[in-house]
Amino acid sequence: MKILLTNDDGVQGLGMLKLAEYLKDKYKVTVVAPEKERSAISHAITLHKPLRLKKVKEEDGLKIYAVNGTPSDCVKLGIEVVLEEKPDIIISGINEGLNLGTDILYSGTVSAAIEAAIYGIPAIAVSLAETADIEDRRIYKFLENLIEKVLEKGLPKNTLLNVNIPDFKKGIKGVKATILGKRIYIETFQKNYDPRGKEYYWMAGKISEIEKDERTDIVSVKEGYISITPIHFDLTEYNMINILNSWDIKIE
Amino acid sequence: MKILLTNDDGVQGLGMLKLAEYLKDKYKVTVVAPEKERSAISHAITLHKPLRLKKVKEEDGLKIYAVNGTPSDCVKLGIEVVLEEKPDIIISGINEGLNLGTDILYSGTVSAAIEAAIYGIPAIAVSLAETADIEDRRIYKFLENLIEKVLEKGLPKNTLLNVNIPDFKKGIKGVKATILGKRIYIETFQKNYDPRGKEYYWMAGKISEIEKDERTDIVSVKEGYISITPIHFDLTEYNMINILNSWDIKIE
Repeated sequence: MKILLTNDDGVQGLGMLKLAEYLKDKYKVTVVAPEKERSAISHAITLHKPLRLKKVKEEDGLKIYAVNGTPSDCVKLGIEVVLEEKPDIIISGINEGLNLGTDILYSGTVSAAIEAAIYGIPAIAVSLAETADIEDRRIYKFLENLIEKVLEKGLPKNTLLNVNIPDFKKGIKGVKATILGKRIYIETFQKNYDPRGKEYYWMAGKISEIEKDERTDIVSVKEGYISITPIHFDLTEYNMINILNSWDIKIE
Repeated sequence: MKILLTNDDGVQGLGMLKLAEYLKDKYKVTVVAPEKERSAISHAITLHKPLRLKKVKEEDGLKIYAVNGTPSDCVKLGIEVVLEEKPDIIISGINEGLNLGTDILYSGTVSAAIEAAIYGIPAIAVSLAETADIEDRRIYKFLENLIEKVLEKGLPKNTLLNVNIPDFKKGIKGVKATILGKRIYIETFQKNYDPRGKEYYWMAGKISEIEKDERTDIVSVKEGYISITPIHFDLTEYNMINILNSWDIKIE
């Protein structure tokens, strides 16, 4: 079985490298990751400049490549250039920091997994609480079990999984299938002045509404569950088609 | 009524500036747009460096600001810093080039409108066929009618509109509410060598499957309709929750 690994923390990302080392005993693992950190890059792709692919490591069962592009570029290059055959599964992560609720729209980690799903390849985005111990072997054992399950059962067409792992130090409640929660921010920008007295704005973001729905990824992770949210990428709002057709919008 | 305009072609983008000029007689128009082109930037936001906001024009009914960030940054800054009150509607575009089907996942134009919808503000992304005549007054008259309709009827919560306007020179069939089509690419990269003999990959992309479903934006625009696709941004695949819960994935 062949696994393609990527992330948005960059090719040095500890979470991804640890997962690659863990999985390489069992699978043929290829890492294709951005040469530098590209978090919050969402689903951006590089159209207007050439991409460079650099092999940075090769050993038994593990090859690592760095790309001067985005996580989605890496998935495309991994599938179309690096690997001779399609991988059996693509894992994006382990991201150091959670990717929950509406915030996944901004996430390079999740977008890379969506890109994989567009290619029709089973994909899992994995994120870990920042305070968690990245050395905890239970994280990797759980992911191994999940990967096996996905390879055995398959995923429905155009569907991928977004996994968020809480800090196990607070106890693990179990694994839970969740829906995406809502994250609304207020006071998004801090205004300040640079050493030359020129004003600037730095994105901050304070969460304005606390999500309370227990079915959501946000609440489930907070309560100590490993959250698995099934994700699709058909943004059509089918319920509004008839409404729109009734509007009778004139052209001239 | 207050309109916030942005785009991903940059603050000099002709489509956006023409729309701003057209709308300013009727509405109070504020433009907040990237200082340079940021197409294919998707929903990226700028977390790791400060943003600069520069007023580049101010006249009756129209203010224009440039930002060293992404389209989504511009929407956030527009709402939270530039405007004193929430705008009544946010328009992203007119983008010079269509944004159809699966490709909207990569689009800065559409992502800016999604960002607006996250804030609960009615939003429309507008894209025009590259071969179309951007001076054609019917484009602006149609958009004026659509904006009026949205302001009058409102949009359902968490819903926005993705509008694609074909080349009118080939005749206009009418306005049609559509679903997103599928775009699958093959031979995505051109491999070549730079003047120093070092290889690089440049994203190209040839469409591998021709979309045939007449309900889609792709086919409708090709046939000469103005396409309006209602868009949501809840990526949860609800149908898979029960399946996932039945998997019984072990942690250790």
